[in-house]
Amino acid sequence: MKVSQIETPALIVERSAFENNMAAMNRLLEQTTMAFRPHYKSHKSIDVVKRQLAAGAKGITCAKLSEAEDLAQAGVGDILIANQVVQQEKLGRVAVLANKTRLTICVDDARQVAALERAVAAQGGTLYVLVEYEIGMARCGVETHEEVIHLAKLIREQPHLSFEGIQAYAGHLSHEVDLEVRKSASAAIEADLTRLKKKLEEAGLPPKEISGGSTGSVELKPRDSVYTEMQCGSYLFMDGSYAQLDLRFENSLFLLTTVISTKPDRVVTDGGMKSLGMDQGAPIFVGYEGLPVKMSEEHGQVTAPGHKAEMGDKLRYIPGHCCTTINMHDKLYLVDGEEVVDIWPVTSRGKSQ
Amino acid sequence: MKVSQIETPALIVERSAFENNMAAMNRLLEQTTMAFRPHYKSHKSIDVVKRQLAAGAKGITCAKLSEAEDLAQAGVGDILIANQVVQQEKLGRVAVLANKTRLTICVDDARQVAALERAVAAQGGTLYVLVEYEIGMARCGVETHEEVIHLAKLIREQPHLSFEGIQAYAGHLSHEVDLEVRKSASAAIEADLTRLKKKLEEAGLPPKEISGGSTGSVELKPRDSVYTEMQCGSYLFMDGSYAQLDLRFENSLFLLTTVISTKPDRVVTDGGMKSLGMDQGAPIFVGYEGLPVKMSEEHGQVTAPGHKAEMGDKLRYIPGHCCTTINMHDKLYLVDGEEVVDIWPVTSRGKSQ
Repeated sequence: MKVSQIETPALIVERSAFENNMAAMNRLLEQTTMAFRPHYKSHKSIDVVKRQLAAGAKGITCAKLSEAEDLAQAGVGDILIANQVVQQEKLGRVAVLANKTRLTICVDDARQVAALERAVAAQGGTLYVLVEYEIGMARCGVETHEEVIHLAKLIREQPHLSFEGIQAYAGHLSHEVDLEVRKSASAAIEADLTRLKKKLEEAGLPPKEISGGSTGSVELKPRDSVYTEMQCGSYLFMDGSYAQLDLRFENSLFLLTTVISTKPDRVVTDGGMKSLGMDQGAPIFVGYEGLPVKMSEEHGQVTAPGHKAEMGDKLRYIPGHCCTTINMHDKLYLVDGEEVVDIWPVTSRGKSQ
Repeated sequence: MKVSQIETPALIVERSAFENNMAAMNRLLEQTTMAFRPHYKSHKSIDVVKRQLAAGAKGITCAKLSEAEDLAQAGVGDILIANQVVQQEKLGRVAVLANKTRLTICVDDARQVAALERAVAAQGGTLYVLVEYEIGMARCGVETHEEVIHLAKLIREQPHLSFEGIQAYAGHLSHEVDLEVRKSASAAIEADLTRLKKKLEEAGLPPKEISGGSTGSVELKPRDSVYTEMQCGSYLFMDGSYAQLDLRFENSLFLLTTVISTKPDRVVTDGGMKSLGMDQGAPIFVGYEGLPVKMSEEHGQVTAPGHKAEMGDKLRYIPGHCCTTINMHDKLYLVDGEEVVDIWPVTSRGKSQ
């Protein structure tokens, strides 16, 4: 199939950029002591997971239990849910999953530890647990070293839980455009986690893993970082938001649209807000960079007096946010020039439970 | 099943508010000469369509061919695609569909008329066509009365197309919070369309339908409006954006979330931007109205010093935009108090092609 034959709007991934990004991340991490546990949330595709594991990833990170279930069902043997799972209705499923794969989960409250122990005890097996430590994002996570140590001890006391280490995600820095701010904050986190690690070791609770990181911050980690693994996801695709940072990764993801109407001053396509995430701003219309864009549910338009677009033309957007965009689609078309070379189902599209 | 047992995040619809909204729209339109052709784009659910048709809707409006196919497959006999369909790969499907249901489509360019005629001629049958007329939204549609008349004549000359009338959608007014602006713009549109209708009649091209309208503008139409049918969709649900207008409809749609982490100054839930549309702003956290909200992909949080929330509690959001929110979900839970009374699949979730 040719790219021009894809029914639009549709997400296309340029193979060369995608493969370059995968290789660039491997080169980057090979120079460090850190392993790679890429985040499923960006692509939600088992086809992509298989490529990441084949390229050396030690396991996969995900955000939700429903994603972890899809990963385990696909045979992924080492899964981290980088999040708290609290709802009573879900805990039995966590325990079932812990018997199917090597499952790690995060906690930030003693009551979660007790609830997870009860659930896993009922099934047997072991659940690996990271204590989430809050490092500036002001979301989940405990806020002091003492609380981390307290929870680590509590986890160690549970017969069916194993204290694995620390989850420390600086989501607030991922899209910080000021490189100096990112650098200094990243260094401060590194120093703080090093102190925390030492305290845990002194308490007889050495963390096996310190997990976190993102596409926007991975380059700033020292070669011998206190982090043991990185959770980057967007590096494969990039987007309009990450394009504002000067990173080593290329944009590979585009929303392919068809021009359905033109006026002397504007071009209107069939790709709207139901086909891309608007949470990090409007998309960039390729070829019309910097011009005013207006989005509605099923239309996208750019004000471009003197444009040369014709009805039926294809127009590509760079989405503002790759992760929320892919989550709206059932498949990704892998393309090489004008050829569609593969179609990857978005296995866990919509799995937010 | 109890509401508390729904795995979160999930969309719930309160039955009484939903039914009140359906009845309120019927009462409103019964006092006018206008028929009702509700828009599928808001709910994308065949279960809801059946209720709308049973309540007297004459047919259904949708935005995309893929939605129209789902509607026809469910037996809906009168469908309007309120949009241009241009892509060559789709035209044969339009023609097939025109043989399966009474299908109406919009055009704003003579080349679309020629392409549709060729496609339908190959299959046989009749396709009904509205000329889209631009009334202030600056999106698709021709901009002058003369262009409408020109296209209407062209359509009439095609053996397999039938000129049905005018599509005139004032999307720019739907969310205009200033009632006086909405009123005066709505009156100006009414007057302009009345003049256009007269010219078409004089040219021997009387429009059978003048179709358009939205939840935000339907109340402003005169009883004997020049519009023959209204396309409102959001009235069933409402949302944070429509809540700023003083309309007769109640909010029935909520994202149900679970509190997964609390701090003295904040409450964090498991419902994030992958579960709701952010294109009309952040959701309203019920019980925390007016307090600062921060959303990430799989978390939502509100800054609320002194809050009483506990881990595991349920928290409801009112989404900023009902249409883009429902499009992310596979089902709607209809609830009555604490009981789940029905589950409606979102039949055309993600169908933007």
